[in-house]
Amino acid sequence: MRQATHILHVATRGRGLHEITEKVRLWSTASGIATGLLTLFIRHTSASLLVQENADPEVQRDLERFLARLVPDGDPLFEHMQEGPDDMPAHVRAALTQTQLSIPVVAGKLVLGTWQGLYLYEHRRRGTQREVALHLIGE
Amino acid sequence: MRQATHILHVATRGRGLHEITEKVRLWSTASGIATGLLTLFIRHTSASLLVQENADPEVQRDLERFLARLVPDGDPLFEHMQEGPDDMPAHVRAALTQTQLSIPVVAGKLVLGTWQGLYLYEHRRRGTQREVALHLIGE
Amino acid sequence: MRQATHILHVATRGRGLHEITEKVRLWSTASGIATGLLTLFIRHTSASLLVQENADPEVQRDLERFLARLVPDGDPLFEHMQEGPDDMPAHVRAALTQTQLSIPVVAGKLVLGTWQGLYLYEHRRRGTQREVALHLIGE
Repeated sequence: MRQATHILHVATRGRGLHEITEKVRLWSTASGIATGLLTLFIRHTSASLLVQENADPEVQRDLERFLARLVPDGDPLFEHMQEGPDDMPAHVRAALTQTQLSIPVVAGKLVLGTWQGLYLYEHRRRGTQREVALHLIGE
Repeated sequence: MRQATHILHVATRGRGLHEITEKVRLWSTASGIATGLLTLFIRHTSASLLVQENADPEVQRDLERFLARLVPDGDPLFEHMQEGPDDMPAHVRAALTQTQLSIPVVAGKLVLGTWQGLYLYEHRRRGTQREVALHLIGE
Repeated sequence: MRQATHILHVATRGRGLHEITEKVRLWSTASGIATGLLTLFIRHTSASLLVQENADPEVQRDLERFLARLVPDGDPLFEHMQEGPDDMPAHVRAALTQTQLSIPVVAGKLVLGTWQGLYLYEHRRRGTQREVALHLIGE
């Protein structure tokens, strides 16, 4: 049994879903671990992780529209506005989605379903540099 | 240290929570692993996983009513409607709940609390065949 | 490769975020495991786990205000009211946040970002005794 760790750097280009499936898959394959558990952990509280459909881009736009309506930028409910009208909504969106994902690896492959992609969800309007810690244990 | 993996097939009978606690527990026990970490990963983006109260069925009905109000079927906000009025709401519900759950195993048992059950949450109105990948590492 | 397990007892003082970062960090460090995966699992369905910003207390108050508006206590939508107007909202809040979190350990440290703290989110108005199962695997 052995482990591998890595920090994945993702430059986001603004609010929305940024697919990281291929980067994660390549790193996992390169580890040579055939059976194991892969964990992704995002080191931020205004961006998050999500497994979503990778087939129809409408799904991603609709999800973004839903969250924009549920947690509106500049909502007067929020006190924490010093870093901009999208800062507190970003924290709420992150709380409602995932900070961490673990995915089994079987026969050298992530067990993702046919239509599943791995996404970093940037919740701030301006893109920035994000870090996702990867950990893989298995053999 | 060793690992076990399995695909759990669940035939859902329509929208709502389908309990999988016993199936997961039986598989975990059969592995013979006394101390470890069990991971469930659902291979779909219109169904999800949830730990919820298994005592009072009202809790499950109330949760379903809440989600039906929060993410209404046929909401004109959504573009992605080709697969039916419940398709995009299913993706949103899945994003707001869990794709994956990991549960420690101690003394041969999942550390679930007294009132906790493991559920597959079907978000499409029509039931279908769902797959949950199980992974257990320990000794 | 080895494992460590523990039950963390947290006495909550009422609804809101209770930071557990230091308690978790101390236990992880004491295990002597330098590279591994730490998992937290809360054994309740009316409290949950969350990674959130630990810098500005406004963020935590705003998140609480958002959830109080999204899932109002005493909402007539809910049938399950025997245990009080905050009981069913607590289950919904738990479903929308996390029951479990896994965090990689690298060079003897949790890979939390600079502003990330680990929180137990108590969703009942009255505080109570809560249990978080900890599991660490690595070497």
